[in-house]
Amino acid sequence: MLLLHLSDVDEASWAEALRAALGDYPVVRRGEDYDPADVRYIFVWKPKPEAFDGLTGLRAILSLGAGVDALLKHPALPDAPIVRFVDEDLSQRMSDYVVAHVTMHHRLYTRFQADQKAKLWSQLYPPAASETTVGIMGMGVLGQDAASRLKPLGFDLRSWSRTPKDMAGVVGFAGADQFDAFLAGTDILVNLLPLTPETTGILNTQTFAKLRRDRLAGGPVIVNAARGGHQRESDIVAALRDGTLGAASLDVFETEPLPASSPLWDIENCYITPHIAAISNEATGVRYFTNIIKRHEAGEALVNVVDRRRGY
Amino acid sequence: MLLLHLSDVDEASWAEALRAALGDYPVVRRGEDYDPADVRYIFVWKPKPEAFDGLTGLRAILSLGAGVDALLKHPALPDAPIVRFVDEDLSQRMSDYVVAHVTMHHRLYTRFQADQKAKLWSQLYPPAASETTVGIMGMGVLGQDAASRLKPLGFDLRSWSRTPKDMAGVVGFAGADQFDAFLAGTDILVNLLPLTPETTGILNTQTFAKLRRDRLAGGPVIVNAARGGHQRESDIVAALRDGTLGAASLDVFETEPLPASSPLWDIENCYITPHIAAISNEATGVRYFTNIIKRHEAGEALVNVVDRRRGY
Repeated sequence: MLLLHLSDVDEASWAEALRAALGDYPVVRRGEDYDPADVRYIFVWKPKPEAFDGLTGLRAILSLGAGVDALLKHPALPDAPIVRFVDEDLSQRMSDYVVAHVTMHHRLYTRFQADQKAKLWSQLYPPAASETTVGIMGMGVLGQDAASRLKPLGFDLRSWSRTPKDMAGVVGFAGADQFDAFLAGTDILVNLLPLTPETTGILNTQTFAKLRRDRLAGGPVIVNAARGGHQRESDIVAALRDGTLGAASLDVFETEPLPASSPLWDIENCYITPHIAAISNEATGVRYFTNIIKRHEAGEALVNVVDRRRGY
Repeated sequence: MLLLHLSDVDEASWAEALRAALGDYPVVRRGEDYDPADVRYIFVWKPKPEAFDGLTGLRAILSLGAGVDALLKHPALPDAPIVRFVDEDLSQRMSDYVVAHVTMHHRLYTRFQADQKAKLWSQLYPPAASETTVGIMGMGVLGQDAASRLKPLGFDLRSWSRTPKDMAGVVGFAGADQFDAFLAGTDILVNLLPLTPETTGILNTQTFAKLRRDRLAGGPVIVNAARGGHQRESDIVAALRDGTLGAASLDVFETEPLPASSPLWDIENCYITPHIAAISNEATGVRYFTNIIKRHEAGEALVNVVDRRRGY
C-alpha cells in the first residue's frame, strides 16, 4: 500500500494520477480508511509531525523534493530508505533558470539597465562567453545538467564539489582544500549544492571576497538556485552595496516567502525570484515513483537512495 | 597594395596588425604617400564619400562589417567584388546576446522585476524551454550559430528565411507565403536578417499581431540584434504599451545613438542596449582578411562575396 502525505501541493491530483498508473496496487490518502501497518511506501512533501505514526511495515520513504534537508530534520523520521526524486524535467527547468541568469549577468544587464534609466548611450562590449568563467558549486544531477547546457554556449567552466567529479570540459575542484583556488578563477558563481551542515552559510562575505574581480565589469556575480540556508543574507546585502559583488540572482531565501522587511527587495543589482527556478512535474513524478514501487515490489533494489550521514 | 579606410574604429591599430601579418605586402592609410592607382584592395568601415576616388586598379572591397546595407548605399561604390567579414568570434558574441535575451524573457524577467519592485512574493513557474518556441528570422551564419546554441538549451526552434534553409532540429519556413505560419507558432521572435528593401520595417504592428499569444505569460517577445532599419519604432512603442508585445530587447535603432527624446527609453518592458550585441574582433579580422588577400594574390577565388542584387 502507498500512502500519500503531500502538503502545499494538489494531493488529490497526485492520488488520481498514481492510482491510474499503479493499477491494482492500493493508494490511500490521509483520512481514508486504511490500516497504517499495511503501508509499505509513503510519498511525502513537507510531512507533518505525525506523518509516520503507526507505519510499522514501511519499506521506503519517497520524497517529492530533490532536496531532503527539511525531511531529514523531521523529529520522527523512520529508519527506512529515503528515495529522492530525480526529475529530468526539474533538471531542465533548473538549468533554464541558471542559464538565463548567468547569461544576463555575463551580458552586463545591471549596467545597461542603469544606462537606460539615465537615457545614456554608452557602448561597452561584454566579453565573449569563452572569456568568462562560470563556477558551479555542486555537481550532482542538477549541477551536471547546468554544466552540459552552459558548455555549448562557450563558457569556460569549473566545478567544486565534496568529492572529485569528472566531467569533460569542466575543470574540477573538490573539498575544502581546493575551495579558494576554485573561487579565485570564478566570475559567476552558481550554487546547486545540497544543504548540509558543511554547506550551510557557504555564500558569505569570505567566499565573495575570494571571487575573481578583474574580468566582469561591475564585479563577480552569484546565482543561488539551491537553498536559502546556503546564504547569509546580511552578507549579500553588504557585498552588493559595497561592490564586493556586482550582482546576485536569488531564487531562495533564509525565510520564505521573503519578508517585506528584507533590504534585498530594494537593491537594484539583486534579482529576486520567488523560489520558482524549478518545480517537480506531476506527470514525470508519477512515472518515476510508479517505476520505483513496481520494481521494488518485483524484488529489485531501490535507486537514488539518500545517504543520511552525507545528508543528500 | 591594401588601403585602409576605417571610420569610428582604431584604424592605426588595425594598420599595425595588418602590416605585421601581411609582411612584405604594402599597407597604406589615408593621408600617407601612395598612388591610388596602386590600390588593389580597400578595407572599409563607414567609408566617406571620396573613399573610392582614383582607385582604378581595385580588385576587391573588404568590409569590416557583417552587414553591408550601408556600404551598398555608398554613392560612388565601385563595381569590384565586396567581401563580407564572416567572423566566428562575432557570431559567438551575437549568439551570447541572443541567448541572454531569449532566456531572460523565457524566464519572465519583466514579471518578476515588477513583483520585486512591489515586494510581492507571487509564485509562477515559467514553462520549460522545450515548451517555448523561438522563431529566428535570417538563417545565415549568425542565425545558424544562434540556433545551434539555443538547441542544446532545449528550446523548440523554427526559422524563416528568403530561401529554404535546412538545419537539423529547426523547423524551416521560407518566403513571404510562409511568413504568417512561421509567426503563428512563435513565442520569442529573434531578428538576424540582412537589411534589404524586402526586410526593411519587417518588425511592425502586422508582424507583432501574428505572433502566438497563449504560451508566454505577458505576451510574445521580440529580440532585434540586426539593424534598426528592420523595426518601426512607433509600432514597437504602441505594441509594448497595449500588450500586443510582452517585451522587446533592442540592440539597434532607426537612429543611433537612440535620441533622448525616444519614448523607448522609458518603457519598462523595453530592454535597450547601445548596439553592443557584437563587435568584430581585431585579431580575428586581421587573420581573416590576411588570408583573403594572400589567397587572392595567389590566384584563388574570393570567398563570402556579397550578392549586390540580393543585398547581402
